Amino acid sequence: MMDEQLLSLVLFSGTDDKLNAAAVLTAGAAALGRPVHVFLQYWALDAFRKDRIDLDHGLAPEAGPEGRKAVDALRAAGQPSWAETMRQAKDLGEVEIQACSLSMDLLAIEESDLDPLVDGVEGVTAFYLATGNGQIVFI
Amino acid sequence: MMDEQLLSLVLFSGTDDKLNAAAVLTAGAAALGRPVHVFLQYWALDAFRKDRIDLDHGLAPEAGPEGRKAVDALRAAGQPSWAETMRQAKDLGEVEIQACSLSMDLLAIEESDLDPLVDGVEGVTAFYLATGNGQIVFI
Amino acid sequence: MMDEQLLSLVLFSGTDDKLNAAAVLTAGAAALGRPVHVFLQYWALDAFRKDRIDLDHGLAPEAGPEGRKAVDALRAAGQPSWAETMRQAKDLGEVEIQACSLSMDLLAIEESDLDPLVDGVEGVTAFYLATGNGQIVFI
Repeated sequence: MMDEQLLSLVLFSGTDDKLNAAAVLTAGAAALGRPVHVFLQYWALDAFRKDRIDLDHGLAPEAGPEGRKAVDALRAAGQPSWAETMRQAKDLGEVEIQACSLSMDLLAIEESDLDPLVDGVEGVTAFYLATGNGQIVFI
Repeated sequence: MMDEQLLSLVLFSGTDDKLNAAAVLTAGAAALGRPVHVFLQYWALDAFRKDRIDLDHGLAPEAGPEGRKAVDALRAAGQPSWAETMRQAKDLGEVEIQACSLSMDLLAIEESDLDPLVDGVEGVTAFYLATGNGQIVFI
Repeated sequence: MMDEQLLSLVLFSGTDDKLNAAAVLTAGAAALGRPVHVFLQYWALDAFRKDRIDLDHGLAPEAGPEGRKAVDALRAAGQPSWAETMRQAKDLGEVEIQACSLSMDLLAIEESDLDPLVDGVEGVTAFYLATGNGQIVFI
């Protein structure tokens, strides 16, 4: 079944470490030819604003100063940002990124405020209909 | 298969933003006629105590003051709380909310301490048996 | 299908409460005879370093001082640590724990730095191939 193959990621968290974990999971699935459906909520949606996507979004609290240093060192060594990895994933495979309409209201943003990585806005019903019985991962 | 349709949500986090995301995912699935099984652990369980369910449970750290303001503005404009959305979801469809027995011990609470939204207490084995091969989402 | 039975856990968070929730979900699945595949990323991987696995890794921010006290009281009453629960889960059933190769690079650690609970290092592609269409839970 097509929908068993589909991987649905609900992105909620807006820190760079979780967004990077999400981007790596997206790119990995896309590289294997699996369609990926990304649904952006809350602080993850905020991070996809076109005037914020390249800013520093911080890390999970448990990262601490040592985690911060590790992340900075890897970026300095040439690791792409999560936004770049998401772009590569879209070039590589079938990756659709949708903003949650309720979170759009919450953050009082318009579709034109979002980075072109985002394909559109949808409600939770549309999300479930696209997802079917495929895997759902909340990040 | 019935259990392919079932959506199981393990709620761990106790902040209002994550609980609201969980309530919206629950209500959306219920509206589509899908059964939802919610399993409450740790700080999410704590938030379902009847004397705390209507309190302010804070937001994820990355919300920041701007996120706080956005959440408060939406509530002031009439958005229901996550607890109200969970209640609506239960009216709408087949939503079962169970407290994790290990987390009950951890927090030293009795079933009578919990809001009536919670249907009972179960162990992790009962959770898996109810879940079958359906989707599991950890929030 | 074998891969419908398999439960895949992506562990990202490195706090003791989330790691304990993950260990309980692992042990519960193993006790039911379900194979479990654990993939360690970021701060969860850091917590599996052999010189850190028995340290205090803190709690999610929303735990607060009351949550801290509850967790400490349960440990004092004899509750096993998450690392002990993971060890029991491996004795009990088919539990494989793999470190994410990208996170190994991020944290600049070698396989010999990891606790013997960790079975090896794999990339995200190997993770997906092992996972198939089974449930994926991100913690």
